[in-house]
Amino acid sequence: MRDLSGDHRWLSLNTATVRQQGDLLAIIDACARAEVRAISPWRDQVAKVGLEPTARAVRTNGLDLSGYCRGGMFAADPERQDEVDDDNRRAIDEAAELGAPCLVLVVGGLPQFSRPGSAPSRDLDAARAMVEDGIGRMLDHAGKAGMPLAIEPLHPMYAADRACVNTLGQALDICDRLDPDRTGRLGVACDVYHVWWDPELEASIARAGTDRLLAYHVCDWLVPTTDLLNDRGMMGDGVIDLRRIRGLVEAAGFAGYCEVEIFSQSWWSRPMDEVVATCIDRHKSCV
Amino acid sequence: MRDLSGDHRWLSLNTATVRQQGDLLAIIDACARAEVRAISPWRDQVAKVGLEPTARAVRTNGLDLSGYCRGGMFAADPERQDEVDDDNRRAIDEAAELGAPCLVLVVGGLPQFSRPGSAPSRDLDAARAMVEDGIGRMLDHAGKAGMPLAIEPLHPMYAADRACVNTLGQALDICDRLDPDRTGRLGVACDVYHVWWDPELEASIARAGTDRLLAYHVCDWLVPTTDLLNDRGMMGDGVIDLRRIRGLVEAAGFAGYCEVEIFSQSWWSRPMDEVVATCIDRHKSCV
Repeated sequence: MRDLSGDHRWLSLNTATVRQQGDLLAIIDACARAEVRAISPWRDQVAKVGLEPTARAVRTNGLDLSGYCRGGMFAADPERQDEVDDDNRRAIDEAAELGAPCLVLVVGGLPQFSRPGSAPSRDLDAARAMVEDGIGRMLDHAGKAGMPLAIEPLHPMYAADRACVNTLGQALDICDRLDPDRTGRLGVACDVYHVWWDPELEASIARAGTDRLLAYHVCDWLVPTTDLLNDRGMMGDGVIDLRRIRGLVEAAGFAGYCEVEIFSQSWWSRPMDEVVATCIDRHKSCV
Repeated sequence: MRDLSGDHRWLSLNTATVRQQGDLLAIIDACARAEVRAISPWRDQVAKVGLEPTARAVRTNGLDLSGYCRGGMFAADPERQDEVDDDNRRAIDEAAELGAPCLVLVVGGLPQFSRPGSAPSRDLDAARAMVEDGIGRMLDHAGKAGMPLAIEPLHPMYAADRACVNTLGQALDICDRLDPDRTGRLGVACDVYHVWWDPELEASIARAGTDRLLAYHVCDWLVPTTDLLNDRGMMGDGVIDLRRIRGLVEAAGFAGYCEVEIFSQSWWSRPMDEVVATCIDRHKSCV
């Protein structure tokens, strides 16, 4: 297991962590100041400042990407399939333009939440089938673009509205069906916030292995958690055994960035440089 | 699958659903007025009005119980094991005195939340081991009292603070290890709120079968959910496919009460008779 205590070369900042403090170019500047080597930006942040200016700022600062957020949101009314596919092809192209190592897929929940305006449904199995079909339809374009797709299972509390893929095991089943030869084109993003509770966690991480573990995200689970979406904790402030989980992913062969992704009204209310400095400190002491 | 639309003979009221509107004797009166045949009371409610007065009110009104809430909270500092075991033996005795068909076990999360004052820990595997040991220690007394124990897996969002048993599959694994002969003494309480998202739900319910399915709880999952604990929905107001899940448990042999258990600031703020009437209406139209 890597010793991260001496520096923060394996820290990546998911730019949603400070999205309320400034635009993406300001975040890239803050990372440069703090010698953070890598980021994982969100599409809406990129759209706001422009794809080309973002790509230029990434190159100028010598930044790596640890991922690009996000494609997905597959469940929708059938007549909206082209819209979904176009949207996801654009996400792949943007990820490629920015030099991301993978496009993270948040697959969406029931159609009325995944693509608002779609007919309401309670059929989670049907949504799951739409998700798998949708990922299948992305594979060709992703392959041509050389862009691996990382399915991110989300915590079961998001099953209805954000992602109906809710465990690593379920995500890996999809990977095995769509990419049985483990080509490296399809894998998972393992975020401790979503998976830490899973009794099958150790087995699923081992099953994923190097070729399916495309991204590793860290934050913490607070007790109490006061908001389902925006009350994630800074590493060390919660109950997740972060060292254990990093030990598991590294034992399975993962050797990439530990990407800090914290959605938190509390951390969004603090100065950007303070948040980045805290991420670096906790990366060294807790991750 | 049973047709519940004509009457509410298979409705049971978990008395937490109206716990802020009156004490347990008032709730029993309301059930009698509405011809609700069964309840599932909580220990704190019983303690407040007394075990003997409760037992008398249950008998006088000819009520069934669909369960007794709750035993559990196993994870604790080792020196507190006697306290945990005494507490759980009392829960068994109370359940027997009230004529409950099972004692529901909410197993507890990490020790500092399960039994406050215990040493803080992030070791979920250790908590899970304490839970299994604790259930094992209850079996003898439960057997002598003729009181089946129903492990209730809670939603993964409660893994840290309320229950580290989070899927039916995990609960059934514990049952199989502690009661391999399926004696009927150990099983599960299946609450739709906790399990509806589970990709393994159908397989786990089938695996449970009649002899492990000791209780069936209904409510609904709201989108958005504004509070992790007290924002459960009335049946029909959310996204859970209630008919499908009841179909699964009945296909597995379950033929008992559908117990309405709703923790909700919204429903707690309405008159008790209105809430009971709404439960009856939704039981017929949505469950």
